[in-house]
Amino acid sequence: MEKPNRNWASKREKKAQRLEKISNLLNGKYVETEKIVEVMEKLIAPGDKVVLEGDNQKQASFLSESLEKVDAEKVNDLHLIMSSISRPEHLNIFEKGIASKIDFSYAGAQSLRVAQMIEDGTMKLGDIHTYLELYGRLFIDLIPNVVLVAADKADKDGNLYTGFNTEETPTIIEAAAFKDGIVIVQVNEVVDSLPRVDIPGDWVDVVVKADKPYQLEALFTRDPQNITELQILMAMMAIKGIYAEHGVQSLNHGIGFNTAAIELLLPTYGESLGLKGKIAKNWVLNPHPTMIPAIESGWVESIHSFGGEVGMEKYIAARPDVFFVGKDGTMRSNRTLSQAAGQYAIDMFIGSTLQLDYEGNSSTVTKGRLSGFGGAPNMGHNPGGRRHSTPAWQSLRDNDDPLGKGQKLVVQMVETYGSNKKPVFVEELDALAVQKQAGLANAPVMIYSEDTTHIVTEEGIAYLYKAKTKEERQAAIAAIGGVTPLGMTSTKESLDSLRAAGIVKLPEDLGIKRSEAKRSLLAAQTIDDLIEWSDGLYEPPMKFRTWS
Amino acid sequence: MEKPNRNWASKREKKAQRLEKISNLLNGKYVETEKIVEVMEKLIAPGDKVVLEGDNQKQASFLSESLEKVDAEKVNDLHLIMSSISRPEHLNIFEKGIASKIDFSYAGAQSLRVAQMIEDGTMKLGDIHTYLELYGRLFIDLIPNVVLVAADKADKDGNLYTGFNTEETPTIIEAAAFKDGIVIVQVNEVVDSLPRVDIPGDWVDVVVKADKPYQLEALFTRDPQNITELQILMAMMAIKGIYAEHGVQSLNHGIGFNTAAIELLLPTYGESLGLKGKIAKNWVLNPHPTMIPAIESGWVESIHSFGGEVGMEKYIAARPDVFFVGKDGTMRSNRTLSQAAGQYAIDMFIGSTLQLDYEGNSSTVTKGRLSGFGGAPNMGHNPGGRRHSTPAWQSLRDNDDPLGKGQKLVVQMVETYGSNKKPVFVEELDALAVQKQAGLANAPVMIYSEDTTHIVTEEGIAYLYKAKTKEERQAAIAAIGGVTPLGMTSTKESLDSLRAAGIVKLPEDLGIKRSEAKRSLLAAQTIDDLIEWSDGLYEPPMKFRTWS
Repeated sequence: MEKPNRNWASKREKKAQRLEKISNLLNGKYVETEKIVEVMEKLIAPGDKVVLEGDNQKQASFLSESLEKVDAEKVNDLHLIMSSISRPEHLNIFEKGIASKIDFSYAGAQSLRVAQMIEDGTMKLGDIHTYLELYGRLFIDLIPNVVLVAADKADKDGNLYTGFNTEETPTIIEAAAFKDGIVIVQVNEVVDSLPRVDIPGDWVDVVVKADKPYQLEALFTRDPQNITELQILMAMMAIKGIYAEHGVQSLNHGIGFNTAAIELLLPTYGESLGLKGKIAKNWVLNPHPTMIPAIESGWVESIHSFGGEVGMEKYIAARPDVFFVGKDGTMRSNRTLSQAAGQYAIDMFIGSTLQLDYEGNSSTVTKGRLSGFGGAPNMGHNPGGRRHSTPAWQSLRDNDDPLGKGQKLVVQMVETYGSNKKPVFVEELDALAVQKQAGLANAPVMIYSEDTTHIVTEEGIAYLYKAKTKEERQAAIAAIGGVTPLGMTSTKESLDSLRAAGIVKLPEDLGIKRSEAKRSLLAAQTIDDLIEWSDGLYEPPMKFRTWS
Repeated sequence: MEKPNRNWASKREKKAQRLEKISNLLNGKYVETEKIVEVMEKLIAPGDKVVLEGDNQKQASFLSESLEKVDAEKVNDLHLIMSSISRPEHLNIFEKGIASKIDFSYAGAQSLRVAQMIEDGTMKLGDIHTYLELYGRLFIDLIPNVVLVAADKADKDGNLYTGFNTEETPTIIEAAAFKDGIVIVQVNEVVDSLPRVDIPGDWVDVVVKADKPYQLEALFTRDPQNITELQILMAMMAIKGIYAEHGVQSLNHGIGFNTAAIELLLPTYGESLGLKGKIAKNWVLNPHPTMIPAIESGWVESIHSFGGEVGMEKYIAARPDVFFVGKDGTMRSNRTLSQAAGQYAIDMFIGSTLQLDYEGNSSTVTKGRLSGFGGAPNMGHNPGGRRHSTPAWQSLRDNDDPLGKGQKLVVQMVETYGSNKKPVFVEELDALAVQKQAGLANAPVMIYSEDTTHIVTEEGIAYLYKAKTKEERQAAIAAIGGVTPLGMTSTKESLDSLRAAGIVKLPEDLGIKRSEAKRSLLAAQTIDDLIEWSDGLYEPPMKFRTWS
């Protein structure tokens, strides 16, 4: 055997050398707020893999603003890894040459600029990921050199309290702390004693008090005032034709008004169908304010959350039987565990999309916008590694196959014409054009046709899992396609035969009258109603208030 | 709106009431070793959902032995949730009526007894799971009332040090700690100051010093002495025909001699092919001792581990550039994160099985043995939620489909006749009979045909992902089926056409001479050789030593 002489602790030594450079700036683990740029210039080296916490809700905003201020002569060519590209400086960092490559999950508001910067070469794209996939890579081939994260409070030893918004912070820190990466944490507050420890101080290298609290957005709040009667009709169909039909007990709701309508119909329409205690009991979900009436009415056994939601703090604290709440009285979220649960342990994912092609493939990536998908592809696919059975899952089993198994319900709920007045059904997803524009290896499809079991439109429900052929699948989508070009291809004959086979159901097949779909059915019609349901515990952010 | 009057903190109150019952037995968070049975009788109520930590390696053996001793009049009808049913008392608990229902992942040595107890009704089966799936359910519909776990050390505040074997402990504790479940921890040692904190004391209710250290088995150690030349031949084919062919960079190896042979051929045969630095760089893997020569030869960039492996402690501590090691110098494993990474972030899973049917479905569940599968179905399937691309993954893309994407390599490596002298290829998996015997909703298949991309036998490699039809798939398996009944159905004509299409490759197609497959090719031929490669840092357990 021939063994080369090798230093097996080179990463540890490099880390020690870098920390040595800031020893004069360190007081225990603390650096002063105004020294953070200098600290970053000394701790981050050109070419480093850096995780910058841009969570779905929580943003390490002080650290990202500070990173934009470093001298690009000293710190450059960074490979950034981010769940969510949300803030302008996340991209300014690239324009200044501080970073050059990105791996991410979701871009949201920055999606247009991301696509442009990739096209013009300012930003080199690693790839787009689901959250869980990106976290996985932090332990395999994207092991970070430095992580920049946010917490609520720290004590003198660097123990961290993340409050409601634990989100992905422990996972990011774990990847660095145990592989000789450097962990830098911004905190809102430094205290003598924490309400609880969410992350041990042992895992943390540098703590800095931020100039202002980290940015936190109310992303999952939908004002009931904006729910339309078309959405209520679709929600009624979903409850009766899918939730009740399959006995869905555990689920995730995507973001949006369609699912908010369902949440607000459970205590009214759902109650009238005698479904309470039979469906929609165990949830993996951000704390949607529109869930309050269903919770108060006793529909909900449990909710595990990816993150928090601004304004829901006190309400959650008062409902520990439902939410995951610590001894300190505050919720603990965990994006990694919630995504694992949402992938493997629930009966159904239901969400919306911007485009569906004629086979049922969907994407929220539209012309020129590289938005990514966050958690949808993870929860919105049939997990091949699942082995346990539930009634809903089992109801989709192909019983002709002795080795058959159940299937996760993956439901897309869309109006045939989107808010942009364009048909939601398109012959070709814009994702294909964006693939070329951004030079992606594969088209950025959010949910694939093969995983999509149901589509709900204002016209009816297509039970795609029952379709035996590709043609039948397309015919079923056309049958609920309304007056879109795809919908116009559907004939009465095709519709009749699909209805007879139970592949398509119209409202009348479900015993639902369109005229019943009234806003008065909503358990709460305004944000004020939600506050009232919550006994005043829900405190919506200013922008959702009708008073000031 | 009508709101029922409800106590929203009933779980919290119940927990407080139970803890109150042992207040006279508590010294801080500590109870005396000899009082644990009494404590359990007071903290665990009939019908509770109880997670008993039976990890892959680490066993909460003191707590499981103690649970067997509780009075079944007081504690009964428990619903046990366990990763791994490993110890006799795990089943005695059912015979005594203390527990009645089980949800689990893996049974191993107890698989025969498990099947019998389910058949005779002593044990009611919830379901079989992959690890990650079971963890997910802890946050959805299997939220525990009590968890019984093991750690190495605790300090007076109940902060926990798990050392090498963090495994699933933090995930189990998190599910209980934040949903008013009770967390009981056995520790080997109580100390003033921990080497590091793996789990914050805030999350822990009761700590007890065990009568002896928790059970820990060396499960992933394979003595190179027992590797055969047939296994070496298969390993050579795998390296050249799969690892090199697809450029596999990130991977998991299942347990067994087949993959141990690959590990020991990388620094010799792999080196001679010029593959170092090109393949097999980033691993998710338990710390297999047979990896030592590849690590020492500079093949391995990183290994993230599910758990530890007895004897590898000092070696790992001295190789922090490769393993995930804390500031204290000890590895941190994490079964949940490693499984997430193994599912989403690696190019390939390669493992063995006991049976394959003619379509390529496989199972380790055989006649009368309900063994479960652990992590194999999770890592051994094509994850539908994956969106990022790597060269190996992309090499399996169907380029005719504009919405096509890559695929994970899932490789089964089997000798045509198993160690039981029976053909590995069977017309019908025993899993179907066991399904009936145990009343399972679905047949306990480990890896499905649709996910299996390659099969390697001593005859050659079947590139199943290239087969266009079910018939072609079966023909490809038959072509490498040797003299098994399936193999005998293969004709020369079929073999020739499969070879021409690149669907089957024989050793000669890969430029491998059978006569080259010699034990002298192994980088280590004995455990002693492994110790030598490790500079004496590897300390195998007694049973693997040739001296005493």
